[in-house]
Amino acid sequence: MEDKKANILPESCPMIGGNDSYNYAHNSRYQKGAVDAVKEMINEAIAEKLDIENLTLASLNPFRIADLGCSVGPNTFIAVQYIIEAIELKCQAQGLNSCIPEFQVFFNDLVTNDFNKLFASLPADRRYFAVGMPGSFYGRLFPKASLHFVHSSYALPRLSKVPEEVVDINSPAWNKEKIHYRTATKEVVEAYSAQYAKDMESFLSARAQELVCGGLMALVIATIPNGTLYSKDTMVELLGYCLREMANMGLISEAKVDSFNLPLYIPSHKELETVVERNGYFSIERMNPLNHQMKQTTPSVQMSVLHLRAGIGGLVKEHFGSEIIDEVFDRLTKKVAESSFILNPENRKEIDLFIILKRKSN
Amino acid sequence: MEDKKANILPESCPMIGGNDSYNYAHNSRYQKGAVDAVKEMINEAIAEKLDIENLTLASLNPFRIADLGCSVGPNTFIAVQYIIEAIELKCQAQGLNSCIPEFQVFFNDLVTNDFNKLFASLPADRRYFAVGMPGSFYGRLFPKASLHFVHSSYALPRLSKVPEEVVDINSPAWNKEKIHYRTATKEVVEAYSAQYAKDMESFLSARAQELVCGGLMALVIATIPNGTLYSKDTMVELLGYCLREMANMGLISEAKVDSFNLPLYIPSHKELETVVERNGYFSIERMNPLNHQMKQTTPSVQMSVLHLRAGIGGLVKEHFGSEIIDEVFDRLTKKVAESSFILNPENRKEIDLFIILKRKSN
Repeated sequence: MEDKKANILPESCPMIGGNDSYNYAHNSRYQKGAVDAVKEMINEAIAEKLDIENLTLASLNPFRIADLGCSVGPNTFIAVQYIIEAIELKCQAQGLNSCIPEFQVFFNDLVTNDFNKLFASLPADRRYFAVGMPGSFYGRLFPKASLHFVHSSYALPRLSKVPEEVVDINSPAWNKEKIHYRTATKEVVEAYSAQYAKDMESFLSARAQELVCGGLMALVIATIPNGTLYSKDTMVELLGYCLREMANMGLISEAKVDSFNLPLYIPSHKELETVVERNGYFSIERMNPLNHQMKQTTPSVQMSVLHLRAGIGGLVKEHFGSEIIDEVFDRLTKKVAESSFILNPENRKEIDLFIILKRKSN
Repeated sequence: MEDKKANILPESCPMIGGNDSYNYAHNSRYQKGAVDAVKEMINEAIAEKLDIENLTLASLNPFRIADLGCSVGPNTFIAVQYIIEAIELKCQAQGLNSCIPEFQVFFNDLVTNDFNKLFASLPADRRYFAVGMPGSFYGRLFPKASLHFVHSSYALPRLSKVPEEVVDINSPAWNKEKIHYRTATKEVVEAYSAQYAKDMESFLSARAQELVCGGLMALVIATIPNGTLYSKDTMVELLGYCLREMANMGLISEAKVDSFNLPLYIPSHKELETVVERNGYFSIERMNPLNHQMKQTTPSVQMSVLHLRAGIGGLVKEHFGSEIIDEVFDRLTKKVAESSFILNPENRKEIDLFIILKRKSN
């Protein structure tokens, strides 16, 4: 099952807020590249797939949009702006100029997200009513049939939790010494894969209740081609190496390293299609690779590590304590700098997919 | 016009969040008393005035509630709980058991409110979808006809801003040396009164657009009986005295004291009725004095000053700087302790009103 291991590149990390220089707002250029790349795709999807006239009859006004896993901005604001402009454009194109709805936008992230920062940086010239919605998108967040459009960009590699087996010392899937499934045993990979399938089923079932029939969901999800083989030279692998090194030096406990696993998962295309089809509430209207500019460039070592830290620094801090976090990422920076492999764009195996799902009629 | 001056008691102060011991969550026992006192009134208002069956036909599901000026809890959660229980009770009484709607609750306060704290303390067992809505309730906050019930408790003495004339050195309404209209000139009182009327018109017009026809608004507002005469012994008056004393000692600048005015206003019953009637979008369904238990008790000096600080400490800090705030309130504590008048419940002139307004049909 070695071929099922995924290569978590920094761009696939979930986002965290906060006020320090390691936060997402400061280190989200890669995602910004993706947001720009999806602009045209969102435009096309709304032009071709959103049935404005029928939705109008049901409950188009106000038009409710949710961004799931929004972090603290600014990319969430840019994405929302693109969605609203595309809908306005469509209304105009259909001669429904006078019927352009009011927009209400729900910015969602975990309750630990810095919503104060998000609210303080809301664009002053926004043409929508903005609200913050704290909570896990693996559960219900919104009333039934109350949303028209859901957007989520790079939030879905984050699992609802680390699979229990991989931190259970008595389980065959115990992931000793490692912090992820990538180079782990078959049992660990299967535990992660099962958790992913379960989480996605929860995600899709919750959204199926919340979206009106005909409502759209635009997702940007990092995936790996089916059957990909991976090198061990990835940043997450090196991070695990740094942690073990620090345990060997007695700076952190070995047991702590053994019990630390990242709740992240990059599915294959096939896995993703399978969970959507098994769920049954959505049709896949579009599934395109997203080739944005930043994908072809070689990022600097420092920027890459900052990016990873923005994504998972909080998890490391929570598990190991804040006093060691600088040293962990300093060590990682040195290790990444020594590798000519990791940051070379030619060695990236992931493909970011832009996906449009449509809520089927009941 | 001396008789028009209002007596701002600590209980009428707007609320602030934050993590220190001076915040609202720690010092809101008076409001909690009021929340308990309105429970029965909310029950009755919903039983008698909320036309569930007609609202159902329009857009009852989900039932959307907004609490305006929510601060960081916990009183906002208690009030919301009472409202939801009353609606469920009414549905059951009408045999609409199977039609109990889902509830979506919008917690609103200024963007400077600590929404992170609010979200972290949301009741785990809540039976509603909770969202945070940052912004001033003197402007539009929600899409048209998207709310069924609005609640606001003790938030409406806070004006949208200090009337410009009272801080304009060239205006006849310049409020030199004083920090409020209470013992000020006729011109100052009129400037505050005009600002209040303007703000309430904005408040009511915004809500008129946001509430469905037949939707209710439950407000708890501190008022003064028409033509009330006031003593100068109030906490806000003493606070002004402390600030002038500190200016005389050179601890703060005189100009700073001259330019500091509290954006708070307590209307008379008549004024309140007049703004609602002039606005025209709402019928006054109920307007009852609220006699809650805390009203009859003599609060401790320390508790009263803490309460005032929770309400307006942020304004004092913003204007004079954080380094002097402890001294200001230490001085105030001494002054209040020297007065036998201020905390005696018999000398309270304010009457808290519980008001139910109903959105008229267009």
